[in-house]
Order: sequence, then structure tokens, then C-alpha cells
Amino acid sequence: MKRPMIINVFEACSPGFMPPGMWQNPEDESFNYLKIEHWSKLAKLLERGRFDGIFLADILGNLDIYGGGLAAALTSGMVTPCNDPLMIIPSMAQVTEHLGFGVTASLSYEPPYLFARKMSTLDHLTNGRIGWNVVTSYLDSAARALGLDRQLPHEERYRVAEEYMELMYKLWEGSWEDDAVIRDRTSGVYAKPELVHPVVHHGKYFKLEAIHRCEPSPQRTPIIYQAGSSSKGRGFAAHHGECIFVDTSSIEKTRGVAEDIRRQASELGRDQDSLRIIGGIMVIVGETEADAQAQLEKHRKFLLPGGTLAMMSAAMGFDLAAQDPDSPIGAISSEGNLSAVRVLTDSENAFTPRAVGNHLQGGHGAVIVGTPSSVADEMERWIEEASLDGFNLSQGFRFDTMERFVDLAVPELQRRGVMQREYRPGTMREKIFGKSARLPASHPADNYRIKRD
Amino acid sequence: MKRPMIINVFEACSPGFMPPGMWQNPEDESFNYLKIEHWSKLAKLLERGRFDGIFLADILGNLDIYGGGLAAALTSGMVTPCNDPLMIIPSMAQVTEHLGFGVTASLSYEPPYLFARKMSTLDHLTNGRIGWNVVTSYLDSAARALGLDRQLPHEERYRVAEEYMELMYKLWEGSWEDDAVIRDRTSGVYAKPELVHPVVHHGKYFKLEAIHRCEPSPQRTPIIYQAGSSSKGRGFAAHHGECIFVDTSSIEKTRGVAEDIRRQASELGRDQDSLRIIGGIMVIVGETEADAQAQLEKHRKFLLPGGTLAMMSAAMGFDLAAQDPDSPIGAISSEGNLSAVRVLTDSENAFTPRAVGNHLQGGHGAVIVGTPSSVADEMERWIEEASLDGFNLSQGFRFDTMERFVDLAVPELQRRGVMQREYRPGTMREKIFGKSARLPASHPADNYRIKRD
Repeated sequence: MKRPMIINVFEACSPGFMPPGMWQNPEDESFNYLKIEHWSKLAKLLERGRFDGIFLADILGNLDIYGGGLAAALTSGMVTPCNDPLMIIPSMAQVTEHLGFGVTASLSYEPPYLFARKMSTLDHLTNGRIGWNVVTSYLDSAARALGLDRQLPHEERYRVAEEYMELMYKLWEGSWEDDAVIRDRTSGVYAKPELVHPVVHHGKYFKLEAIHRCEPSPQRTPIIYQAGSSSKGRGFAAHHGECIFVDTSSIEKTRGVAEDIRRQASELGRDQDSLRIIGGIMVIVGETEADAQAQLEKHRKFLLPGGTLAMMSAAMGFDLAAQDPDSPIGAISSEGNLSAVRVLTDSENAFTPRAVGNHLQGGHGAVIVGTPSSVADEMERWIEEASLDGFNLSQGFRFDTMERFVDLAVPELQRRGVMQREYRPGTMREKIFGKSARLPASHPADNYRIKRD
Repeated sequence: MKRPMIINVFEACSPGFMPPGMWQNPEDESFNYLKIEHWSKLAKLLERGRFDGIFLADILGNLDIYGGGLAAALTSGMVTPCNDPLMIIPSMAQVTEHLGFGVTASLSYEPPYLFARKMSTLDHLTNGRIGWNVVTSYLDSAARALGLDRQLPHEERYRVAEEYMELMYKLWEGSWEDDAVIRDRTSGVYAKPELVHPVVHHGKYFKLEAIHRCEPSPQRTPIIYQAGSSSKGRGFAAHHGECIFVDTSSIEKTRGVAEDIRRQASELGRDQDSLRIIGGIMVIVGETEADAQAQLEKHRKFLLPGGTLAMMSAAMGFDLAAQDPDSPIGAISSEGNLSAVRVLTDSENAFTPRAVGNHLQGGHGAVIVGTPSSVADEMERWIEEASLDGFNLSQGFRFDTMERFVDLAVPELQRRGVMQREYRPGTMREKIFGKSARLPASHPADNYRIKRD
């Protein structure tokens, strides 16, 4: 049997996400995003469907470029408002046993010592089912929200990111030795002091002197997710990433990005089997072709193009409302902020603001529509031809679109042997890679481990 | 009927807390502190006992003064290791309906924009059952963990705290108007942009320009907890605090602190009924006096004095291991760091390091031992004579000590009409104060609300 596809859902802790406006459907449950029960329900649905995980996006700052304000973001609810995605994980973990949780957090703004503790706490509470989508943030509005005048330049953000990762590995992998915690009721020793080491870090961007605040968690370092298609982003992903999220605007482009990341990782000495590349797509499945098309029309009916345009304008750093809606957007600098943008630079430059707004994935992700058999064909084709290992699925209606996927597409994919029927045991890293709960020796985190003879 | 006592449990997300070492008891469940189920079990127990809430302590940095290192903290497990207490709240909220959650977070290190979002998210997820214990941190080791050379001086920490609170009120109370979120499926408007206002703050310590990232939560500002016995601390508590946590080393001293806080609050124009003062105590209850004494002995048997001494040395900023264990500790500067310390300054200066280490509450909290009737008498006496509104109870054995309290003491307190039999409806603020879910107009947060005619 082929290695099964990785299947995640792609979500945000917000009333609106890609595609925006779905809450207008009276049967949609997006308004409950504020409640624990909403997320528990989704988590149980996904585990029933044998999903690998839920991938939680996050944006700090505001989508304030489009139209020079927040009107489109606020009216559509496009990641505006947006609650803290970390906080919904413990209750989802409580009602599931296997589902993984990949969560976005920006190293530009989270104090390293506190962030390392948050993730270790979640790794403990989820029994090793946590992943971290490393982002550096890309909005000037986020910088202003966090007390700066503007964000650091793109290149410098990646230098900061490298040092931040080093610090995380020191805390997660190098502070507590494996056998430090003995919990000896006879001698009254919880942990052996000689096996717990302070991290002393005096770097260019960060300074820290402390032991890690948490005892060793199942995975130590959470699974490292990364979504980077810029040249710097790919380099970072090849160096650190384990699950790498890429766009799917075309098979050729996606394959090019995937192959480049694999090649770079290989050149860095990474084990090729320690890397998975995951494409962002949307799947609308019906019992018949007509049913699927009716579902597609229903999604289109409730789409709010302003939400997508607000997101894309923020990502690109210029106002699509000030453009002719029917003229191609044209080439965007490769130092544009969001990976989403860069797929629009060449073959897609026929994309106009109107086309982007009207596309369910904003023009940078495939939308696959059809019967269980035809969507399975298409998903298999993407895996093969675009060199992918799996997918992050946009939700559409909460939760009707995903319920259809679970009830119609999943059995077909399982029947074909390309999706798991049962979970593997262990942590998220063990489930996905079938090996150790810990990062392999070929990963740069290994440099920060304490090695005893 | 008298106003019922407020009853919370006092906990930390750690294998050891006051009194330290209880995990040595083979029946103790402290080792499970890493698991969701541990906290769900506690939450359900407390709700069965009609507790108002769980109060979660937290310490950043390390207890590294005692003996010049971390040996005592690590061997006893005294808040070392210590997971992020925020992360255990959602799963406890999921299995309860009424229990409140007071959580400690340091404004010295949490970026304001991100912290405001965390708390609003929790206020949504808990349906308005969240409280924030505002601390400024007191350890140089925490400052070093967060990249500074040392902490700010005590006075300046409180100036920072005032500005931080102002910023929180602006975000929580002044960014989104009450009727901003309309969720109109017909017009496709989630929130009205004209009713969502950016906070523009350019202060001495903080700068921020952004709308609050979350839509209005049930309480907006969480219940403000504060634990301050220093003169600056009392002033801060009188200004901002709703539930104020004080020591109980003696009835006279506690009454003096409580009356001073109430007087200061009154002078600041605060409604006297918008303030509750809560003493930290430990209650060991048995079916008979002999049973209670046997329980007390069992707690003493497993006590690890080094844990308490590590905590007290860190709090005082000097090494109790370097003192003669049988000489009185003597007067400590009133600018000592922890409120815990200051109760040792005069009548208690007979406390020696040995006595502090051997005391189940480290010398700064009452330990009440007896039958249901006698502990209820003593609790009532503290309420009356020390001018208290309720208690934070130290746990002792997890969860045997608290199960005994719930099964033996709670029915007696309820029978006397001094503890609630059922919860009041609504948010934590409504349950505790019996009024609005929002802060009253006499609270300084009111200055930052948008007032329309």
C-alpha cells in the first residue's frame, strides 16, 4: 500500500476564513466559533473521518489595506475578529485520542521563554499531539499592535527566526535530560538537579538565562509546520520544517516548489523521510455530479469577495480596491509577504481583483468538485503529479462541507488504500512519520541535545 | 442569610505547591498534573462542592536563591517544573458549568495586545467565568529568563502596571461597542465597522495601535484578582481589584490589611460592594478530632521543608539556607517581593527558617484542623473577625484533602447558611457580586468605555 495521504482541515478561530462569508448560510454554524462545543464537535467529526489533524491559522494585526480600512474585514468577518487559536486546543484534545493540532504562532511577538512553555504544556496535555506552524508575521498593522512602528524587513525577519528556533531547541531539547524526572517517593526527589541545565543564550536578538520551565514532554519539540514559498521561506522550511504547507494554484508550480524544498533539505543533510509537503485545497463532494455542482453554487452564493480581497491586499501590501477590478493584478514582488501571493506572479497573472475575490480559494488553491470517485481521482493526481504528501482542506460551510467529505470522500479514499482507516499509535510525530516521538538526528534540533557517553 | 463565603481552591500547574512534597504520599495524584484528566477531575469535584472557583498561581523564572541553586526547588517539585496555567482552563470549563477560573499572569512579560486576546478568548470559551490575578513578577530570575538583566524596581513595576491596566481597559471596554456585532445574514454584515474603534495608545511604557482582536466577551474585563499586601500593592488592589487575596498569619494583621484596602477603595470612589477580600488558608477536616489530627500528621510526614524555604528565599531575595535554622528570620524590608514575606515582619519574627519550613503554609497562612463543626466555627470566626469575604484553600493531598473538605466541611457550612448550596446564574462576576456581568461604573475601567447619548 502507498503511504496514506495526510489530511488536515484548515481553520481559524474566527467567524470568517477562506472562503469568507459562509456564515450567511442559515445552516452554517460559524457563529458558534466563540464556544468550546463548536470546536469539540469539529474535533470529533475529524477524528471520525480519520483526519490527521486540524491546522489552525492565525493573523495578528488587522487587514487594513483594502479600501484603506477595516470595513471589508469586519463586514465579512474574515479572520476579524479572531480569537487565540491555542486556547481551543485543550478542549479538542479532551474529546479526541488521535487528532493532531497544528497551530500558528508568530515568533516575531511571542516572548521565547513563555512561548516554549506554552507549547510544552500543550504537548503534555495533548499527549504529544501538538505542532507549531512557525510564522514571522507579515503585517505592519501587527507590528503597530505590538508597539513597533513597522515590521522588520523580510530578510531580517528570517535571521530573527533562525535565532528564535535555536533558542526553542535549547529549551525543548537541551535543558532537561531524559532521565531528570525520577519522582522518587522514597528519597523525596522529584527531579535530579544535576540533570537539569540552564539555557544561557546571549544572541543578537534574544537573551535568556533559565532552565526550561516544563519537564520533558512526549515530543519535546512539537512537529514543525511551515508555510513558506518565498526563497527565504523555502530555505527555512528545508532547514526546520517537518510538515510544509504549499499553495496549489497549478500542478507544475506546486511540484516545482515541493521539489525545491526537498532538494534543499537533502543538501542540508535532512533525512528525506522526515519531511512532508501538504497542499492547501478545497474539496466539495456530492453524491452525484449534479449534487456536487449544486453544493459549489451554494458556496459561491454565500461568498463575500471583500473578505478575500481584504486578506490578499494585506498579504500583498497594496490596496486591490484601488485597482481596476477587471485588469490583471500583474507581477508581485517575490518579497511579497504571503506565500499566497507569489503564486499569482506569472501564469496566473490573468487573475484580476474580481477573479480573485470570486474564487473560493482566492486564486491560490485548487477547488476540487465532484463525486466521491472523481474527487478521489483528482486528489490522487495532485499527490502524484505535484509531489505532495497530503492536503490541508478549507472548510466551506461549518460543518456541512466537511461532514460530506467525511461521509462521502473518506470511505472512497480508504477503499483505494490512500487514506488511513485507523490511526497509528503514539504521538503526532509517530503517527505521521512512523518513527520516534522525537526529532530525528538529521534535524538541526539535534545539535542542541545533551549527549552523554 | 449572611452573604455566603467565597470558596476557591489555590493551585498551581505543578507537581508541588504549598504545602510541598505531598506527592510523596502513594495515594496522591500530583504526578498527573501533566494531564487534562487530572484537571477535569478536580474541576468536577470543586463544582460538586459548590466552590466559586479555582485560583491558579504561577511563577516565572526559578526559585534559585535558596542554597544558591535550584536543588531544593527541583527535588521538592515546588512550582518547578510549572506548566502554563492558562492552558488547563478550557478543558476544565468544558466539564463544568459554573466554576470560575482565576489565573495568574504577569504584566511584566506578556505583550499587552496578545494578552488581551488570550483573556477575551477565555472569557468567551468559559461563558464569562474567567478572572485575572494581576501580578508584576518579583524574581530577578524571571527577568533573566525574559531577556533582561534584572527586574524593574518595585515602584516602577507598579507604574508599568497602571499603564498596562489602562491599555487593557481600552482594548476590553473601549474598542468594540456593545452593538457592533450584528451577524446580519441578509445584508452580509458580521460587524459594523463604524462601531469598532482602534485603540491608539502612546504611553511611557507601551505603544499600541489596533482594534481589539476579539469581539465583546461576556464580562469584557475579566474579574480582577490581586494579591498585594505591600503599600503599593494595596493601593493597586484598592484601585483595580475586585477579589483581593490576603495572607492569614494572624486575625489582627489580616483585618488591618483588609480594612486598609476597603478604606482606600472607598476614598477612590469605588462601590464597597464591588470588592471581596479572600484569605489564604488550609483546612484539614476529619470525621472526628482524632481523624483530623491523623490527617494533619500525614501531611506533616510528607512535607518537604526545602520546597517552602526555596519559595520563601526567592520571595525575600535572600538565602535562608545561609541563616542559622533556629534563629528568627527577623524584620524583612517592606519592599520585600512577596506579600507572603511581609507578614513575618513583626509579631511573627519568632519564625525561624526551621519553623517556616515545617509549617504547612510556610508561616503565612492559617492551618485549620478539626471536625466539620470546629473547622466551620473557625472559618466563620476568620470571616467575622478578620473582615474577610472568603477563602483560597491550599490543596494538600491531591485530591484526598479537598474531597474530605467537599464531603465533610461543605455540608456543614451549607447547613449553617454560610456557603452557597446552588450557584447563581450568569458569569463569574454575576455569581460573585450578584449584579452585572460588566464592571460597575465606580471602577476605573469605566473611564475607557464609549458612551453614546
